[in-house]
Amino acid sequence: MKILIINGPNLNMLGKRDPDIYGTDTLEDILREVAEQFSDCTFSHFQSNHDGAILDRLQQAMEEEFEGIIINGGALTHYSYALRDALEMHSIPKIEVHISHIFAREKFRHTSVISPACDAMISGLGKEGYATAAWALLKKKG
Amino acid sequence: MKILIINGPNLNMLGKRDPDIYGTDTLEDILREVAEQFSDCTFSHFQSNHDGAILDRLQQAMEEEFEGIIINGGALTHYSYALRDALEMHSIPKIEVHISHIFAREKFRHTSVISPACDAMISGLGKEGYATAAWALLKKKG
Amino acid sequence: MKILIINGPNLNMLGKRDPDIYGTDTLEDILREVAEQFSDCTFSHFQSNHDGAILDRLQQAMEEEFEGIIINGGALTHYSYALRDALEMHSIPKIEVHISHIFAREKFRHTSVISPACDAMISGLGKEGYATAAWALLKKKG
Amino acid sequence: MKILIINGPNLNMLGKRDPDIYGTDTLEDILREVAEQFSDCTFSHFQSNHDGAILDRLQQAMEEEFEGIIINGGALTHYSYALRDALEMHSIPKIEVHISHIFAREKFRHTSVISPACDAMISGLGKEGYATAAWALLKKKG
Amino acid sequence: MKILIINGPNLNMLGKRDPDIYGTDTLEDILREVAEQFSDCTFSHFQSNHDGAILDRLQQAMEEEFEGIIINGGALTHYSYALRDALEMHSIPKIEVHISHIFAREKFRHTSVISPACDAMISGLGKEGYATAAWALLKKKG
Amino acid sequence: MKILIINGPNLNMLGKRDPDIYGTDTLEDILREVAEQFSDCTFSHFQSNHDGAILDRLQQAMEEEFEGIIINGGALTHYSYALRDALEMHSIPKIEVHISHIFAREKFRHTSVISPACDAMISGLGKEGYATAAWALLKKKG
Amino acid sequence: MKILIINGPNLNMLGKRDPDIYGTDTLEDILREVAEQFSDCTFSHFQSNHDGAILDRLQQAMEEEFEGIIINGGALTHYSYALRDALEMHSIPKIEVHISHIFAREKFRHTSVISPACDAMISGLGKEGYATAAWALLKKKG
Amino acid sequence: MKILIINGPNLNMLGKRDPDIYGTDTLEDILREVAEQFSDCTFSHFQSNHDGAILDRLQQAMEEEFEGIIINGGALTHYSYALRDALEMHSIPKIEVHISHIFAREKFRHTSVISPACDAMISGLGKEGYATAAWALLKKKG
Amino acid sequence: MKILIINGPNLNMLGKRDPDIYGTDTLEDILREVAEQFSDCTFSHFQSNHDGAILDRLQQAMEEEFEGIIINGGALTHYSYALRDALEMHSIPKIEVHISHIFAREKFRHTSVISPACDAMISGLGKEGYATAAWALLKKKG
Amino acid sequence: MKILIINGPNLNMLGKRDPDIYGTDTLEDILREVAEQFSDCTFSHFQSNHDGAILDRLQQAMEEEFEGIIINGGALTHYSYALRDALEMHSIPKIEVHISHIFAREKFRHTSVISPACDAMISGLGKEGYATAAWALLKKKG
Amino acid sequence: MKILIINGPNLNMLGKRDPDIYGTDTLEDILREVAEQFSDCTFSHFQSNHDGAILDRLQQAMEEEFEGIIINGGALTHYSYALRDALEMHSIPKIEVHISHIFAREKFRHTSVISPACDAMISGLGKEGYATAAWALLKKKG
Amino acid sequence: MKILIINGPNLNMLGKRDPDIYGTDTLEDILREVAEQFSDCTFSHFQSNHDGAILDRLQQAMEEEFEGIIINGGALTHYSYALRDALEMHSIPKIEVHISHIFAREKFRHTSVISPACDAMISGLGKEGYATAAWALLKKKG
Repeated sequence: MKILIINGPNLNMLGKRDPDIYGTDTLEDILREVAEQFSDCTFSHFQSNHDGAILDRLQQAMEEEFEGIIINGGALTHYSYALRDALEMHSIPKIEVHISHIFAREKFRHTSVISPACDAMISGLGKEGYATAAWALLKKKG
Repeated sequence: MKILIINGPNLNMLGKRDPDIYGTDTLEDILREVAEQFSDCTFSHFQSNHDGAILDRLQQAMEEEFEGIIINGGALTHYSYALRDALEMHSIPKIEVHISHIFAREKFRHTSVISPACDAMISGLGKEGYATAAWALLKKKG
Repeated sequence: MKILIINGPNLNMLGKRDPDIYGTDTLEDILREVAEQFSDCTFSHFQSNHDGAILDRLQQAMEEEFEGIIINGGALTHYSYALRDALEMHSIPKIEVHISHIFAREKFRHTSVISPACDAMISGLGKEGYATAAWALLKKKG
Repeated sequence: MKILIINGPNLNMLGKRDPDIYGTDTLEDILREVAEQFSDCTFSHFQSNHDGAILDRLQQAMEEEFEGIIINGGALTHYSYALRDALEMHSIPKIEVHISHIFAREKFRHTSVISPACDAMISGLGKEGYATAAWALLKKKG
Repeated sequence: MKILIINGPNLNMLGKRDPDIYGTDTLEDILREVAEQFSDCTFSHFQSNHDGAILDRLQQAMEEEFEGIIINGGALTHYSYALRDALEMHSIPKIEVHISHIFAREKFRHTSVISPACDAMISGLGKEGYATAAWALLKKKG
Repeated sequence: MKILIINGPNLNMLGKRDPDIYGTDTLEDILREVAEQFSDCTFSHFQSNHDGAILDRLQQAMEEEFEGIIINGGALTHYSYALRDALEMHSIPKIEVHISHIFAREKFRHTSVISPACDAMISGLGKEGYATAAWALLKKKG
Repeated sequence: MKILIINGPNLNMLGKRDPDIYGTDTLEDILREVAEQFSDCTFSHFQSNHDGAILDRLQQAMEEEFEGIIINGGALTHYSYALRDALEMHSIPKIEVHISHIFAREKFRHTSVISPACDAMISGLGKEGYATAAWALLKKKG
Repeated sequence: MKILIINGPNLNMLGKRDPDIYGTDTLEDILREVAEQFSDCTFSHFQSNHDGAILDRLQQAMEEEFEGIIINGGALTHYSYALRDALEMHSIPKIEVHISHIFAREKFRHTSVISPACDAMISGLGKEGYATAAWALLKKKG
Repeated sequence: MKILIINGPNLNMLGKRDPDIYGTDTLEDILREVAEQFSDCTFSHFQSNHDGAILDRLQQAMEEEFEGIIINGGALTHYSYALRDALEMHSIPKIEVHISHIFAREKFRHTSVISPACDAMISGLGKEGYATAAWALLKKKG
Repeated sequence: MKILIINGPNLNMLGKRDPDIYGTDTLEDILREVAEQFSDCTFSHFQSNHDGAILDRLQQAMEEEFEGIIINGGALTHYSYALRDALEMHSIPKIEVHISHIFAREKFRHTSVISPACDAMISGLGKEGYATAAWALLKKKG
Repeated sequence: MKILIINGPNLNMLGKRDPDIYGTDTLEDILREVAEQFSDCTFSHFQSNHDGAILDRLQQAMEEEFEGIIINGGALTHYSYALRDALEMHSIPKIEVHISHIFAREKFRHTSVISPACDAMISGLGKEGYATAAWALLKKKG
Repeated sequence: MKILIINGPNLNMLGKRDPDIYGTDTLEDILREVAEQFSDCTFSHFQSNHDGAILDRLQQAMEEEFEGIIINGGALTHYSYALRDALEMHSIPKIEVHISHIFAREKFRHTSVISPACDAMISGLGKEGYATAAWALLKKKG
């Protein structure tokens, strides 16, 4: 199974940023663990602080043969309708992931404008959110 | 690992209710599948249309030695502060599950009053939401 | 014609509660009058102060052969999304009844969360609301 | 019994307008049916697309000896405080009727500014709403 | 001084409508009293239940040589932006009058959408509101 | 091509009303210019300060063979759900026009309740809005 | 007739403050003019920037034999519930006056928390607001 | 004096739940202390996690001869309009008690929908809230 | 025990103001009764219509050795953040008292901006609210 | 006439994205058609998924000699105040274009934060929106 | 340069109040430091817990020859429109200062009703906010 | 002292953009003046119209040894939660600067989503805002 993982702004800082909330693993650690657990899947990863770059990547992905998308939009989650539009164009399964439990934090993090463009959301499982999403995509594929 | 699964109002109707949204499996089918996949876990299940009965069960569970809770509050999710209070008393990992993707449905389903009392939420993975939650609890336990 | 009548919390107190608003007839009086007027119909009645019990009754009714439901949710009308979900599962005609005119009372009574799950609403006709609903169900059946 | 029936803007288009929502009967068909069912009642009917004309009719009615009013305000229901004031001047029973179930449609149709000036509301019974209202007025008169 | 007095919907019912709130004088009584008190003024009066007719009258008035407008918009006060636009076209002094004290009544009466198009408002002086407004227009003219 | 042009309240005052906002041309000037530019189209024009009269005209138009509607609702744009209902009954292309740019003016002008019943909106092009709408209707027809 | 005139914070600055909005007359000029026009009335005047002092004055006035109160609360109008409570204790006629037209200025000036405790409001008549209020009190006394 | 004490959902967990907020005494401890302090009063106590059961108890109490009610609705306080209706039926003095100070906690705890149906509220006195309420009921009786 | 009692604006009018709501006792009567019931306590009382004077008194009290504060802020309760700040500086027990049941009156009285700075609130016990608060302070001291 | 056309995020996907809403033409098709229709105009086109790039282009355009701007901000329309600021710096005519009718779609698309910085808006004319805007700019130039 | 420094309610408690938030310096310490740093400026200082007294001081200041105002309104910042009106009368530069960072504290502190009447705001610089404001006033004078 | 200055979208246009609001100096002029006044400080400056580029710069700055950040987010201030997250990662003093007084302009400029991640804000001091911030950072360092 071929899966695209997208990480939004500031997620490249994992391991350096608020370890109480986000844990001590770096993004690389997390992705390596996911790859190891699902060795029969191919993962493409893209992280950017530039929302435009994320849109570019998602558009280009329409020409590639992905079977699922895992997206952690970072703070774009809360206001980027452009990201929502880009996700809506994809008809493959899309799972939104949040490392921290966004509904137990500040009020502005309780709203995800991209949720209606995704099939599912996993929030609050820490770094395991990514692996869980991969696991769920595999189950969905059957 | 000993896990308590709670299902709220109307979830005993799975298989009969809006198959487009909730799928064709019954609650029994789903629970059996979860048990089969995680054969080294012990699951206690409780479903009720009575919120008071769910509170009773959650309180009694404080005397038992559960290591995790999986809860699908059904429509209570959207207004039962009593359920939230009952969950807050538990210090073990708690994962909120929704079969359908509540953020892509009617507006009133976008609010979960029990989220701040849980550690994580999984929404929109269909029946696999339960297995995914069990999988995540196991990962969390390490 | 076989009709299910559901009455929610506190409606068993009719005749004792605010006669200015709700009249002096008891629930039994009202139901007897309805039965007398529509002698060719069969009415099953269920009242409870327990919302869970009402959900149980509505779910069980899916196995019986009712041709219409008349429901006065009492105060559950204003917040019980669980009741709404239970009503939505029924595909037979459902009419929501309120004895007092809820739109001419306190603000919180102006919202019915169960309305979108019903086919019609009759508000403010006093005890005649039930008979009127029965009459309308008969007309609908043709 | 002498009853005034008022129909607001666009209701003269019944039969031509969204038959899925409003049915295929014309306003004339509906009124004839009502008259036939309640042959011992006298009905005066007034329809206008002009809210001022409806106010004129309601004011003039204060000099006539009506015993009840059935009003379907059409879209005026949602904003015409002038209509509300005109209805408030009448002390005879007044029943608000809506052919479609306004609480199951667009948000703006969930608010009726004339409700507090009426005794009851019947919403969602289709063309039978008028007959049901007449039936209820007769019951009320006793 | 030449003054135009406009009265909106239902104000022709003064004397018959809620005497507790609006008093027992008819509109004719009130206008005659105003005319008697200010015998050196010329008053043109226009009342209509039709907002369109009021707009027509206000537009036509731009060709006449009025020196002031006294307007009681009735319930149009609360929603008719068309009335506001028509008033804004006049550059002569305009005073908004309400017989009852609209800020001490129902919530919806606390908003006047025509206020920003008037120079002043007099609310709650009963029938004397009209005479008071005339007096004020005279003072303004100096 | 046969086009119906509707102008709402106060638009007959064009040329006399706030020339800074609405320009110095009269409605007649504007309509003549449109007719000259699109000499192969037939235009029927209707202006009224009476919303009821506009509804009457729109209903009657259902019997005529128009191929497009251009509507400037004036202030009715902001609250007349009756106008919206009347427009919704037409299945031919409908374009909403505003002479001034309503989104750069007072807050209450930012909401159009008739937009969802139209196919397009042109706001802020001054008198050219009408010609532009006609041009667009022709393009749409192909 | 014995009338109490109360002026709230900053009104002692009349003549110095925004002459475009409040005019060039001082408070003394205005009061003298009022006294001259109504020579058969006795006016007591009190101005303070201290809301507490105004409450003291209003409480003390309950022991004096005033027949009417004219109050311009200044900015206290918009938030001082204490002033409202103090006014509510008086059963004599009370008229709220505003020199500028508060409904045509900043949003926060559109709300008067003291209105429900007064009998009438006069807004936007400039300095004549005071004389107009006196005139109205005399009329009310009859 | 005969007093009914009602405790809502989760209050049976006192002593086990958040001792920082709710103290270390169990509900039994608290009730025994109250009984000891007011030895000339008779207390009936009822606790349930089932709102329906609380309604049943309150309705049955109308047949008993209580002279006062002390109610701690727990989380039902914030949304149960059914509880409010049940309390409104009682004409004896009713005092709402909260152990913690609900207005200094999460936002959702600041709203009590049952307050308008009670005579008084005591919030934040810890376990002494119950004794304080009993003391107040005795004073009220005189 | 040494207790400071603070009464805000208009509370010196007790006995004269709305006896239906506030009773017929004067503030002096109430304070004397409290003192008589708790003869082993020392009470300092301060009332003012000036919020600034109340702040001065509360600040000065930090140098005295009070063991508790009973405060009825009057209408300041609803908006005086300055009062809240002044109360927050005290670390001794503080109980907010309201004679009437503020949650069963006008909407604006449902908000207390000083509550988060107090330890408890007692609302609706009439004049006994003060004695009840004293009783509770004694209990708290133990 | 020299015109700058700006297209925001995801508009490069035209032809591939929701053909029901956006049509089957690609952006290149649309631009070629516009150029063909207005052969005496020079069009510069810029599309980007990067809002920063769009700001750069708009700033650079201040040094070029454009006589008009046509902008379809895509989803940036709904939240990019930076785009608004960039547009406000231009004093040449600016027309906002939307291919779909944004007021007849999801709620979040009903708000354009860039509208107050533009002279006009054209919404819902499909691909013809661009040509219509060009036509309107030419008319404006005269 | 002659500068007026105004401090509102509770600021005379600096040094005693929440040292974590406001620091350990007294108001006297702070003012002395400011005076020492800007020895070529003359500072007049006024602090009061009475909003009326602050208004008096600001009004009197219009007769003195100040060249700048530094104001820390304390909690009046959040609701005192009277203070806003008093500040608006001054045409000299006015800088609003807050010791703590009001936008990072409780919600109600995020709103300043006096900001529109000032030229600038400095929030969160601790005691240095006063010196910084003085420095800025000097720069502004040039 | 080593200070990072960040300027957001459109601030590179200073000197060309609304000189009434933003002054006639270019960003280069301003930065040179700041550097000249604080010759013992080292300033790194970064401006971009790309929010992603600003995030990149802020993240990279975590590896450099800055002692303070001065940030003018431009319009990103009002919606970029990503910028807020990036600022929150820095533990050095951060001061938000706005050239114009954002609280005295359009409503949408009154909200800063980045304020809770900064230590202080300076708004409305014109170009001197930057120098003032530098001065304050120096004071803070001591």
